[in-house]
Amino acid sequence: MMIEPIDILLVEDNTADQELTLKALKKYNITNNIFVVEDGAEALDFIFAEGEHSSRDIHNNPKIILLDLKLPKVSGLEVLKKVKGDERTRSIPVVVLTSSREERDLIDSYKYGVNSYIVKPVDFNKFIESVKDIGLYWMLLNQLPKR
Amino acid sequence: MMIEPIDILLVEDNTADQELTLKALKKYNITNNIFVVEDGAEALDFIFAEGEHSSRDIHNNPKIILLDLKLPKVSGLEVLKKVKGDERTRSIPVVVLTSSREERDLIDSYKYGVNSYIVKPVDFNKFIESVKDIGLYWMLLNQLPKR
Repeated sequence: MMIEPIDILLVEDNTADQELTLKALKKYNITNNIFVVEDGAEALDFIFAEGEHSSRDIHNNPKIILLDLKLPKVSGLEVLKKVKGDERTRSIPVVVLTSSREERDLIDSYKYGVNSYIVKPVDFNKFIESVKDIGLYWMLLNQLPKR
Repeated sequence: MMIEPIDILLVEDNTADQELTLKALKKYNITNNIFVVEDGAEALDFIFAEGEHSSRDIHNNPKIILLDLKLPKVSGLEVLKKVKGDERTRSIPVVVLTSSREERDLIDSYKYGVNSYIVKPVDFNKFIESVKDIGLYWMLLNQLPKR
């Protein structure tokens, strides 16, 4: 069941990384209102309230999108470009959370207006720590316009 | 003396807030490479390597700009708009650090592409904590394209 409003939209196709991320967010009581999608096409459907997510209220923006780059169907960069190119969604903070350190991915992400770009630590504990820090920063410190 | 490359450009006209911010960044060993400007016009000169900062290398982008909104000469929103509107500078993360909770400021900041918007806590200790968290997030966790 989806609990609206969703605080965090997690776009991640790797189930191990999904589980670690959810574990960290729950462990530190950051939020339980997380929705997970596993490919870029469903991410866009969710964000723009289309397809199977057409009953969602598009104005109920998540407080943050955690976006992997290498995704099935539609790439993370394409999702980022569409979110930041649309007035209805461009104020949603998008944090790329990826294993890619490729310069091209960094340059393109900033070009398309990413809010922040984080490289997934390989170490299990550091991954948990990073997700905690990302969660606390964007859920507690960062301010958004009213939904 | 300016130590290049600058890690943090602090744009803040309130000397008490300047001192608190510098104190927090130094206390937690986040960085000593901070440059402070007190109005929006000098911020633009620094960022675009113009005027009295014309000898600076424009490619030596700071890793983050901490930007107050209510500034003499040129407003923070105007600075943000120019930084995000120019390909040479748009990848610099801009964090608005302001006492304004006005909805209009939030909406405009996100419209112009702010990376993050933080309201200055009124409490002294919370202010120090917030600056520490902002500093650690953007200096250690966030990744940027190579300078």
